[in-house]
Amino acid sequence: MKSEKISDAVVRRLPVYLRFLSELSMREVATVSSQELGQKLDLNPAQIRKDLAYFGDFGRKGIGYDVSYLIEKIRQILNLDQQINVALVGAGNLGQALSNYNTYLKDNMKIVAVFDASPSKVGQKINSLTIQPIEDMVETVQRLKVRIGIITVPDVEAQRVADQLTSAGIEAILNFAPTILKVPSEVRLHAADFTTDLLSLAYYLDNEKENDKHDA
Amino acid sequence: MKSEKISDAVVRRLPVYLRFLSELSMREVATVSSQELGQKLDLNPAQIRKDLAYFGDFGRKGIGYDVSYLIEKIRQILNLDQQINVALVGAGNLGQALSNYNTYLKDNMKIVAVFDASPSKVGQKINSLTIQPIEDMVETVQRLKVRIGIITVPDVEAQRVADQLTSAGIEAILNFAPTILKVPSEVRLHAADFTTDLLSLAYYLDNEKENDKHDA
Repeated sequence: MKSEKISDAVVRRLPVYLRFLSELSMREVATVSSQELGQKLDLNPAQIRKDLAYFGDFGRKGIGYDVSYLIEKIRQILNLDQQINVALVGAGNLGQALSNYNTYLKDNMKIVAVFDASPSKVGQKINSLTIQPIEDMVETVQRLKVRIGIITVPDVEAQRVADQLTSAGIEAILNFAPTILKVPSEVRLHAADFTTDLLSLAYYLDNEKENDKHDA
Repeated sequence: MKSEKISDAVVRRLPVYLRFLSELSMREVATVSSQELGQKLDLNPAQIRKDLAYFGDFGRKGIGYDVSYLIEKIRQILNLDQQINVALVGAGNLGQALSNYNTYLKDNMKIVAVFDASPSKVGQKINSLTIQPIEDMVETVQRLKVRIGIITVPDVEAQRVADQLTSAGIEAILNFAPTILKVPSEVRLHAADFTTDLLSLAYYLDNEKENDKHDA
């Protein structure tokens, strides 16, 4: 069912669908149309139908999608039907902010360990997790079968942390350090650097203005 | 020179190019080939040439790109040749972490104001900015000509903040709250929710394994 041809853009929309479907499920809504999904998510309904059709034939004409069934399917597609352990490396402001997200992650994905290089932070608790020394990282990652690492250390330390996580057998890295990391091709790397988001937003500032002018 | 047809994926790569080019410039490297850029950034050189060709004819066959010239051009394309003021709404751990990024932003983009709803935070300083009460937001955004807003408030407050920023005339929003915001079509909205990043990474976990199996 899975194919390497699915673009990352499609994959990144699945958690967005999942979140809205979970909201519907909590409100005990049984079915939803691609039109309703599209309206809520500001996406073209045809795009949504196409995205979901990559993975199977989930919708029924005139009825729409069964909310519970679609939640179950998307969770399977995202591998969230199994426990996925996550480690957070770097317990500064950003690391602490991210550890708060454990509440939102729900599902089976969970931050199970936090590491920091600073002796003053080791032993402190953030969100019920005790900060561990970075020297213990490889051993702990292997023992807890951590599959995803989140890097929130300063940029000069990021590559070394990525190397250690890789050597410990991690499968995917979400990097918040504002630097370009090199990892082996079998490790999936996403850069979550917010300066990229912010600088790319600036691109749209003048465009909007130009459109306004045309409209006027 | 600008066109609405440029995909967001291309736009998001421009800051990445810009960052590496700035590194080269600091090392006093005068020219760079698309091969060198591609190797460093893990991108296909043809992809890089295509990305840059959307905006102009910057490279020279057999020589490559003039580093200083390309930096200047990308900064122009991203509107970074003008001052762009940014406001941060929400001074929790995430907001504080993001305010640290002012150092990385350099260029002309700058966080010039921070707001929070909590009276205990108002008046405190983070990275030389005094936290202001959220009630002052609309007035301050207009007075300082803030064009981009970063939302790092809890999800239940995010839509109200987005509405206020919109009414204050903001042009773009980077939203970190894990909720789907509705903004008028003239406001550019990027969602920087890290749970989406993390959940979509999980998609690739089993794929990697399947590949390993095939390789074995």
